Amino acid sequence: MNAPDIADIEAAVVRIGAHVRRTPMLSAPALDALAGRRVLVKAECLQHTGSFKARGGWAAVSALPAGTPGVLAMSSGNHAQGVARAAAAYGLAAVILMPADAPDVKIAASRALGAEVVAYDRATADRDALARELAAERGLVLIPPFDHPEVIAGQGTVGLEIAEQAQEQGVEEADVLVCCGGGGLTAGIALALEARAPGLRVRPVEPEGFDDTARSLAAGRILANARRAGGLCDAILTPQPGRLTFPVMQRLCGSGLVVSEAEVLRAMALAAHHLKLVLEPGGAVALAAALFHPQENAGAAVIAVATGGNADPGVLARALAAG
Amino acid sequence: MNAPDIADIEAAVVRIGAHVRRTPMLSAPALDALAGRRVLVKAECLQHTGSFKARGGWAAVSALPAGTPGVLAMSSGNHAQGVARAAAAYGLAAVILMPADAPDVKIAASRALGAEVVAYDRATADRDALARELAAERGLVLIPPFDHPEVIAGQGTVGLEIAEQAQEQGVEEADVLVCCGGGGLTAGIALALEARAPGLRVRPVEPEGFDDTARSLAAGRILANARRAGGLCDAILTPQPGRLTFPVMQRLCGSGLVVSEAEVLRAMALAAHHLKLVLEPGGAVALAAALFHPQENAGAAVIAVATGGNADPGVLARALAAG
Repeated sequence: MNAPDIADIEAAVVRIGAHVRRTPMLSAPALDALAGRRVLVKAECLQHTGSFKARGGWAAVSALPAGTPGVLAMSSGNHAQGVARAAAAYGLAAVILMPADAPDVKIAASRALGAEVVAYDRATADRDALARELAAERGLVLIPPFDHPEVIAGQGTVGLEIAEQAQEQGVEEADVLVCCGGGGLTAGIALALEARAPGLRVRPVEPEGFDDTARSLAAGRILANARRAGGLCDAILTPQPGRLTFPVMQRLCGSGLVVSEAEVLRAMALAAHHLKLVLEPGGAVALAAALFHPQENAGAAVIAVATGGNADPGVLARALAAG
Repeated sequence: MNAPDIADIEAAVVRIGAHVRRTPMLSAPALDALAGRRVLVKAECLQHTGSFKARGGWAAVSALPAGTPGVLAMSSGNHAQGVARAAAAYGLAAVILMPADAPDVKIAASRALGAEVVAYDRATADRDALARELAAERGLVLIPPFDHPEVIAGQGTVGLEIAEQAQEQGVEEADVLVCCGGGGLTAGIALALEARAPGLRVRPVEPEGFDDTARSLAAGRILANARRAGGLCDAILTPQPGRLTFPVMQRLCGSGLVVSEAEVLRAMALAAHHLKLVLEPGGAVALAAALFHPQENAGAAVIAVATGGNADPGVLARALAAG
């Protein structure tokens, strides 16, 4: 398998266009003042299923050959919902391999979309091996969360919209900060912007302790996180960058940024008060970097992708209380 | 002064189009299930300044003659921000007459937009007389919050978008539930839909104890609320329907709906969890009616206008804790 190119992203738009939302690019004067530059927020938390994963899920499921009996996804929750939603629309069975510590709201959401949820221990289990076993047992097609050409192409459709919306708002040069787990969205957006808005440069953002992409980019080779679980930003706690996504990020992305969990909680509160958006922790790391690490960006504007809003109610309450 | 017509709303679009957001029409399967029909939510909380009032404010300020020294607005906060934002863009002074019990977040937001805030006691003062005095003293042009043709026309631009977005989503017949204070938005949307989507019928929604519009529509004449202050839904606690807005509502709207404050808080929590939207209490009454009074609507779909998101942090936390 190879990484997709811009033609694959354009093909994904054709398949998924009617089934995903063109999410708005928002801003607020208070956030501009805090960052010291214009802050544009691509609100993918408003996407169907509450995250950009609805795009990659639909892109992958819609590319399956006719007669596929069902799909298997391994996900802390958002990819699960994206795959489950598409599978339901195509009449396919969906089995989700999900860490036992995933937020209840995400487990419930996958079940509500008709998926079967199988739990595993994030700290000790080998997720990939488990997935291969389940797929073989039940004849399901595995749809990995990021290291898959159609998934990357689907996420890349966010980049096409960013290119258009940045131009509409008069922004031709800016860092595009992307909440980064395995790099599917980051690589997809980077590929789209390479073709459509070369003045926009993608930079992955990760939480402290799970900065595998930042360290891998700095080292020039794939490095893994020491920890596998326990962080606040459950949506983007992947072990290491993908084999397909990393070379794309290496070629196209600027250096990675790393934010603290306290900054993430504060960004969630500011998003609620000034943008009227609910973000989940993993969906708020890019905004946190835009607001609290301004010295690590250059230029008159910065674009932050708010990737998801499936916050556990308790975590959201904690963020609002802290902010 | 007469109420505007569709030509006035179309003229308002030309003036304000580049300065307001076309807000998305969102939905979530969990809300459809709760209401027993499709629920489409027009997310005006994502508008500049956090509410639809940015439309009417811009429409009114942009229609002023050259040489106007400044504007005066009386508002619990959202209209203030809408007027202040437009006045700042046009280089006009803005003085805001605001109830002393308005949420801190709204007072601060008006000041951040460069307005001068003058406080009064909502329970005892005659707001209209105070406004006339201030305007005469300082030579300011009064921009009332709802009973003004350009304000109504500006708010009516929401209705043009609803007509287009409902058609895009395949909805030709539905009740359109609108959070209603003095009726500027309600009348404006009703006028737009009369011309563009006659299958969509506007129905005003109010909180218990402040249901002046529902009672006035039922009685066939303007009735006032007994209480003037103290409710949770500060944005829509007006004394009575307007002289311009009421005849429009009487001609075009269905009966009013009334929701409890407990329902409002629950709707705020559901909007956060399922739509990823922060709503303020006054901006959540329409969604509350859609979700918790389904027997009072007919048809396969309902449209709820989520009019604003400027929730006081404490009230938002209370809603999330209750939901």
